[in-house]
Amino acid sequence: MSDRQFVSPQTHYHTLTEPFYLESGMVLEGVQIAYRTWGQLNAKRDNAIVVCHALTGWADADDWWAPLFGSGQTFDPETDFILCPNVLGSCYGTTGPTSLNPSNEKPYSADFPSITIRDMVHLQAVLLQALSVDRIKLVMGGSMGGMQALEWALLYPDWVGAIALIAVSGKHSAWCIGISEAQRQAIYADPNWQGGHYLPEQSPSAGLAAARMMAMLTYRSWASFEAKFSRQQQEHTSDRPYEMVDYLHYQGQKLVERFDANTYIALTHAMDTHDVARDRGEYTAVLSQIQQPALVVAIDSDVLYPPVEQQTLATHLPNAQFAWLHSTHGHDAFLIDMEALNQLIITFRHQIQAGNGAFEPTSVCSA
Amino acid sequence: MSDRQFVSPQTHYHTLTEPFYLESGMVLEGVQIAYRTWGQLNAKRDNAIVVCHALTGWADADDWWAPLFGSGQTFDPETDFILCPNVLGSCYGTTGPTSLNPSNEKPYSADFPSITIRDMVHLQAVLLQALSVDRIKLVMGGSMGGMQALEWALLYPDWVGAIALIAVSGKHSAWCIGISEAQRQAIYADPNWQGGHYLPEQSPSAGLAAARMMAMLTYRSWASFEAKFSRQQQEHTSDRPYEMVDYLHYQGQKLVERFDANTYIALTHAMDTHDVARDRGEYTAVLSQIQQPALVVAIDSDVLYPPVEQQTLATHLPNAQFAWLHSTHGHDAFLIDMEALNQLIITFRHQIQAGNGAFEPTSVCSA
Repeated sequence: MSDRQFVSPQTHYHTLTEPFYLESGMVLEGVQIAYRTWGQLNAKRDNAIVVCHALTGWADADDWWAPLFGSGQTFDPETDFILCPNVLGSCYGTTGPTSLNPSNEKPYSADFPSITIRDMVHLQAVLLQALSVDRIKLVMGGSMGGMQALEWALLYPDWVGAIALIAVSGKHSAWCIGISEAQRQAIYADPNWQGGHYLPEQSPSAGLAAARMMAMLTYRSWASFEAKFSRQQQEHTSDRPYEMVDYLHYQGQKLVERFDANTYIALTHAMDTHDVARDRGEYTAVLSQIQQPALVVAIDSDVLYPPVEQQTLATHLPNAQFAWLHSTHGHDAFLIDMEALNQLIITFRHQIQAGNGAFEPTSVCSA
Repeated sequence: MSDRQFVSPQTHYHTLTEPFYLESGMVLEGVQIAYRTWGQLNAKRDNAIVVCHALTGWADADDWWAPLFGSGQTFDPETDFILCPNVLGSCYGTTGPTSLNPSNEKPYSADFPSITIRDMVHLQAVLLQALSVDRIKLVMGGSMGGMQALEWALLYPDWVGAIALIAVSGKHSAWCIGISEAQRQAIYADPNWQGGHYLPEQSPSAGLAAARMMAMLTYRSWASFEAKFSRQQQEHTSDRPYEMVDYLHYQGQKLVERFDANTYIALTHAMDTHDVARDRGEYTAVLSQIQQPALVVAIDSDVLYPPVEQQTLATHLPNAQFAWLHSTHGHDAFLIDMEALNQLIITFRHQIQAGNGAFEPTSVCSA
C-alpha cells in the first residue's frame, strides 16, 4: 500500500525542521506528522482536545468516532479545537516504515527504528507546540489511544487538563504481549515477509491477514460472535463452510488492503513497550503522580484489556472516575457502542468544567 | 515427525479388518487404532472407563492426567478397566494424515478425508466391541475429549453409564471456529505448507508454531500469564525481550517437535464440526435426550469454552450436575488443577455408584 492512499483530503501535514529524537536514542530526520482538526483554536489558545487513535487507526476521528462529534457532543467544533494526529510509525501520513528514509530515498521498511508510545506523544507535542496550543482541555483515546493519553498526562502534566482512558491498561500485560507476538509470528511465517524487506506489490498479505483474524477475535467476544454467526453455514459450500470463517477472511483482506505489515510489526512492538513505570519508579507510585481528572472506562466483555486493568488504573489515579461501558461486543465496544460512550464522556466533561465540586473521584469498580 | 516417534511402548494397536465408514460417506481401509489400558476387564465386562483426550493429546492418560490415576482415585486400576484411545486423525498411532494410505503406500497428508467427532467415537466403539466390553461405566474428557464423551452418550446410549464433560460445549461456537481458522491461516501462510503436501523434513513449522502460540493464549488467561510473567524481561536482550515471548516460542517449538501440521488442520476442522444437533434436531431437544448421569465441569477463567457453555449443557441435560473448577489458569486448568478435578470426579463417581438417591441433578450454575 502507498503511504497516502487512504488518507483523506482534509488531512494536514506538519514537517519537522529539527531532528526528532526517539526514546531509544535514535534520530529521525524530516519527520512528517499527519493530522486532522475540527473547530478553531480560541484566543486564549486553551480549548484544544487531542484524540488519540488505536493500532490501525488514522486521523479521521470524525469517521471512526462519528457519533462523538457535533454540537453538545463529546467533540464540539463550535467550542473545542479538536485535533487528531496520526501516530508516529503509522502508514496514514505520519512518518513510519512506509515513508521514505531521507538518507537514501527508499522506504524505511524493516529498518524503521523501534518506537514507543512516548515517542508518539513527544511527536504530537511538537505539533501542538507548532500550532501554539497553550492548554489541552482533554486527551482521550481507547486501546493504543488510551496509552497515549496516559503518557500525555505524565509527559506534559502542566499542559494537559484531563484525560479519558478507554479499554486500556497502564502497562501492556503478558497476555497482550503474547497476543502481539503470536500475530507477528504469523506475518514472519509468510514467505513474502523477507525479513521485512518486501516489495509493496509482494507483501506478506497472507500472514498479515492471519494476524488480523487473530486480532479480530481478541477485539470482540464469545457472545458477540455467537449472536452474530453461531454455526451459520455458507449458502455455497466451499473451503469456508461457516459464516464466521468468511467474516474473518473478509476482515483479514480488508486490513491487507489498507495497512502495511512492517507498520503492524512496528506499532505492536510499540504497544508492547507501554509501561508508565518504565524509568519512572514503581507502577502504582507513577500512577499516583497523575493529578489530572481522569475518566477510566472499562468494557465488561473486554477480553484483551480486561476490566481488572482499568480498575487498577482507577484505584491508583488519585483523581479518577471509573465508568462501565456495558457491552457484549468486547474490546471493540468503544468503536461500536458509541452513543453510550459519548454520554459517559459528555458527563465527565460537564463535571470537570463545573469544577472540583461536581467532579468526585470514585473508587467503586464493581460491575 | 514420524507416526510412532512419541508413542509409548505400552501402547496397544488394533487394526480393523473391515472398511471404516466416515460420516462424510468416505471410506478408510486398514484403519489402526492406538490405545492404552490400565486394570482388567472384569468377568461381567462392565467395569470399563473411557478416557478421551484433547486436540494434541495421546493415549498415555497416566502421563497427562497422572494425579487422577491410583487406588481410590478417579481412575482406579484395581477396580476399573480404564481405556484411552488415541483419536482418529491424530499422529500418535491411530490412523491419520501421517499414516500410510494403503492404496498407494504414501502418507495421506493433505488427502486425509474430513473427519468428525462422531467418526472418532465410532472408531473407539469398534475397539471396545473388539475388546468385548459390555458396559462403559463412564466416558470422560476435557475440551475435544469432552466432545467425544457427549457423542458417546448420544451414539451409544445403552452402552454408556455416565459421562463427565469438562470445559466443553455441545456445539463449537463461532468464537472457537474463528480461533481454529486463524490458527490454520497461520499454517497456510508458511511457504512450507505447500497445500499440505510437504515433506516431513520440510514441514510448515513456523506456521504451526505461530498457531500453537495463538492457541496457548486461548488455553490460559490474562491472570495466569500476568502472575507468571507480567513484563519480566530476558536477561540477555535479544529479539525476544520479554519472558512471555520466550515462553510462547518455547511452546511453539515444543509442539512442532511432537505434532504434525496436517494433523492439526484435520483435528481443528473436526472440532469445528462438533454440534450434537447435526442431523438430530433442535439443540436443547437433543441434549434432553441424554439420560445418563452427567457431570459438567466449568472452569471460571476459561476464555475458549466459557462457563456459559457448560451452564447451557447442565441446564438441558436432564440428569446433570454442574461443578466449578475454580482456577486462574483458564481452559488448561483441567490439565493443571488436577487434584481439584480429581476430587470432583471421585465425588461424582461415588454418587452414581450409590444410585439415584445420592445423585441429585442440579441446575444451579452461579459462580
